Amino acid sequence: MKKTGFTVWFTGLPFSGKKQLAALLSTKLKSRGYKTKILDGGRIRREFNRKLGYSRDDVFQNIRRIAFECQMLTENGIVAIAVTISPYKELRDECRLKIKRYIEIFCDCPLEILKQRDSKGLYRKAEEGKLKDVAGISVPFEPPEKPEVHLYPCRESFEQSLAKTLRTFEMLGFIEKSAPCVLTEEEESMIRQRLRDMGYL
Amino acid sequence: MKKTGFTVWFTGLPFSGKKQLAALLSTKLKSRGYKTKILDGGRIRREFNRKLGYSRDDVFQNIRRIAFECQMLTENGIVAIAVTISPYKELRDECRLKIKRYIEIFCDCPLEILKQRDSKGLYRKAEEGKLKDVAGISVPFEPPEKPEVHLYPCRESFEQSLAKTLRTFEMLGFIEKSAPCVLTEEEESMIRQRLRDMGYL
Repeated sequence: MKKTGFTVWFTGLPFSGKKQLAALLSTKLKSRGYKTKILDGGRIRREFNRKLGYSRDDVFQNIRRIAFECQMLTENGIVAIAVTISPYKELRDECRLKIKRYIEIFCDCPLEILKQRDSKGLYRKAEEGKLKDVAGISVPFEPPEKPEVHLYPCRESFEQSLAKTLRTFEMLGFIEKSAPCVLTEEEESMIRQRLRDMGYL
Repeated sequence: MKKTGFTVWFTGLPFSGKKQLAALLSTKLKSRGYKTKILDGGRIRREFNRKLGYSRDDVFQNIRRIAFECQMLTENGIVAIAVTISPYKELRDECRLKIKRYIEIFCDCPLEILKQRDSKGLYRKAEEGKLKDVAGISVPFEPPEKPEVHLYPCRESFEQSLAKTLRTFEMLGFIEKSAPCVLTEEEESMIRQRLRDMGYL
């Protein structure tokens, strides 16, 4: 296992693809020899911070706890992957200051498209006034001005988003450059020959 | 999730790298959208088949149960990855007959090298007569004559072994050919520019 801790901070509106991208990124990093840990803001809130609501103060509190975890993991050589909406610029800047090696990833999707994806009726309920403190509707989402990685999960493929992310980590020297293992022509033809001999091809 | 069930049957002497390769293969297949399940012969024996010893009959019994699991998983669109020594040709041929889409992967390492790796003292104890029924020493390991995939984990890298394995699956049409996501030069330079603007580079 390689020892390079850093924190990857996914930020973006609900349904913008943060969670799926975090899961894919984690798998990818693991297969390249890094230890990773996903910290899902929603899950941490449900499991550990039940008393916190969605007011600005409570959101700060929840996120600060996550940032603290990330910092500890980072110091211990683990890639911490935080998945939170983090709508407030002030909050994200605080995380950036506290965490040594902090990478912000902005999942940038137009609200109009996200409303169509709204499988939990979150945006709808917010617009109907049944839910308050929903980022994008009742709480403004302050988009990052300079995230290390700017993704557009609504118009680029997950593969594409991942490639951009990993390349950024490589350029920053946070992960080793991957030399994808390409088989030589000889190896390819040996495989083909074997399968032919066995009657497959 | 893609639905393409098949069974990957790792065979080879103890310490030949079957388990590590199975784990890496599983991660890789998952990240490419396939459902996988690893069936570790040693673990299944400890957890479910404690009454079985290491005699030929008992080994057959243990492996037959694993093969049955693999068959069920395969039929249900899952990639079953069996990790067993399976020293007997007759036994492996039986598995091949029973399981529809069966791929044999031979982890081929010289016994002499494996003896040096022998972290559990397995070979040593067998040679001293303290353990019986150890494949390679007291039980002959009958090497596969025509495995679909022939790996040499003692002299090729895991990356290399994995690449050969995945390419074979692709050629057989068991998995889709992967188009590794390569960034365009424009995308590369955009990333570089961003990191420069942020003062990283």
